[in-house]
Amino acid sequence: MPDEFEVIAEMVKTAGRLPKGYSPIGDDVAVVPPRSGLVVLKTDMLVEHTDVPAGMTYRQAARKAVAMCVSDFASKGVRPDSFMVSLGLRRGADKKDVEEVALGLRDAEERWGVHLVGGDTNEAEELIVGCAMVGFAKKVIDRGGAAPADVLVVTGPFGLPPSGLRIMTAGARSEAEFARRARKSVLEPEPDLEVGAALAPYLTSAMDSSDGLARSIHTLARASGLGFVVERLPAARGVMEFAAANKLDGDKLILEGGEEYVIVGTIRAPEVQAAQRAVKKAGGELTVVGRATKQKGVTLRAGGGLRAIRDGGWTHLSGR
Amino acid sequence: MPDEFEVIAEMVKTAGRLPKGYSPIGDDVAVVPPRSGLVVLKTDMLVEHTDVPAGMTYRQAARKAVAMCVSDFASKGVRPDSFMVSLGLRRGADKKDVEEVALGLRDAEERWGVHLVGGDTNEAEELIVGCAMVGFAKKVIDRGGAAPADVLVVTGPFGLPPSGLRIMTAGARSEAEFARRARKSVLEPEPDLEVGAALAPYLTSAMDSSDGLARSIHTLARASGLGFVVERLPAARGVMEFAAANKLDGDKLILEGGEEYVIVGTIRAPEVQAAQRAVKKAGGELTVVGRATKQKGVTLRAGGGLRAIRDGGWTHLSGR
Repeated sequence: MPDEFEVIAEMVKTAGRLPKGYSPIGDDVAVVPPRSGLVVLKTDMLVEHTDVPAGMTYRQAARKAVAMCVSDFASKGVRPDSFMVSLGLRRGADKKDVEEVALGLRDAEERWGVHLVGGDTNEAEELIVGCAMVGFAKKVIDRGGAAPADVLVVTGPFGLPPSGLRIMTAGARSEAEFARRARKSVLEPEPDLEVGAALAPYLTSAMDSSDGLARSIHTLARASGLGFVVERLPAARGVMEFAAANKLDGDKLILEGGEEYVIVGTIRAPEVQAAQRAVKKAGGELTVVGRATKQKGVTLRAGGGLRAIRDGGWTHLSGR
Repeated sequence: MPDEFEVIAEMVKTAGRLPKGYSPIGDDVAVVPPRSGLVVLKTDMLVEHTDVPAGMTYRQAARKAVAMCVSDFASKGVRPDSFMVSLGLRRGADKKDVEEVALGLRDAEERWGVHLVGGDTNEAEELIVGCAMVGFAKKVIDRGGAAPADVLVVTGPFGLPPSGLRIMTAGARSEAEFARRARKSVLEPEPDLEVGAALAPYLTSAMDSSDGLARSIHTLARASGLGFVVERLPAARGVMEFAAANKLDGDKLILEGGEEYVIVGTIRAPEVQAAQRAVKKAGGELTVVGRATKQKGVTLRAGGGLRAIRDGGWTHLSGR
């Protein structure tokens, strides 16, 4: 098993190139050049038995740990600068595992333009990849700024990752092209910083959707002291057909599946078209799914009536 | 078992008071007010089966996780500002466990003047407390600045924590007053930011000593491209007697025990007395233990001769 120093050497070799002004990896602390603006921090921990489904490589797991933090930055309109990694490796981990983790961190650096600046290495009962990320910003969108009549928007479709998980781990059946897209959404989540930056000037509130669409909408509603009527469920192509073929509740896959890593937010109604153009220019797509209401609660308009959307989704430690 | 939201509520209630300019705990990211200077980052992860000996409470474990980061900041002469915590709780964890963790984080906030600004919560196979800390500084002492004829100094005695561990977990025997001090050094590590700040202006190189005195000296030697002659082993009171009574190698306890969380550094010889006065004023004590030499290698002057000090100590993943 490679020891701590061999692990650090591997990280430095594969993912440790740093611009001028940054300290080399390996001292007691990491030093990032002075920056102006608010200091924005996020930490998230990938834990093997809950976050790494069978079929996900260590390279993908390490990349995902960084993606989990990137997603939160994207939803706040902030570009991250650097990140640190706390690694917990199983006793039996070998050189190949460490190389895979280092490659996954490099994938993340290249994908999102962030720098690995340091970390630490431990032995643990399962793979743990803790990511702590820092960025700097003039402004950070919070969850509590929505006003009644604001429009509810999302930057991506929903339902693919939960479908992928069911294909990978529960034997759900699907045609090949859908299976490929669904698996990819699980193995290589793609939070988009360009879309986040383009959308930020228009947002009155926002958050990421890693715990599911319903949870995100309910959270924005509570934080802003209002409600939402959802007019349209933003289903990814093929999800409803997949659900029907596997006798699953398609609405639930979309509302409560989670792990989507797209942005859920609100925009003043007159600015929707400008925001859509800005997001399109950044390579994304902004979809209107509903509107804010003075009346609290989150409801879905369907079949000529309204029905409540429950606050379901992923709750850590809840046993779901 | 409390779910994620109950865990967050407990952290906010107990350890979540934040000054103006900080975002309240619980949004996707944490926001710290703008600061000037270099951005200093550190992450460290406390893992139950290697870092939490039998007899250590969850409160003490959580405090220790923060202390591990504080120690690195202290050794670099930097005052930390804020920290985030990534928590991994066992499936069976109960409300009391969460309260204990929150109290330990508050203990750390009060002891070192740092702010918990955010974190995340997970289920894991064992207790994991990842701490990610940020601070700001004009200058950060690195490991590579020592010059030949610099004096080697330490800010505390060595050997107490490894003695305490042997008393707590291996049935080693000792008289009561020593046992009390030794256990306390394990359960409540006391890295000292005041001492670090007072000493920083005099340091040419420095690091913390959590992996042991020998490891720290060898690391400074390698980073600075020189060697050290150690003239005196800085034994904590009672350690040599404890070692003798338990048929342990006292020198090894001092050199390779680890978990001391004191500063090991170098100072230009003419500045030693001024540095000692500054550290004393900050409530600490600065002890000269040797000097840097052009000749590489680390040796101990003992019995009229020199013998090599091996690069032993705690190496994560090494199986020691």
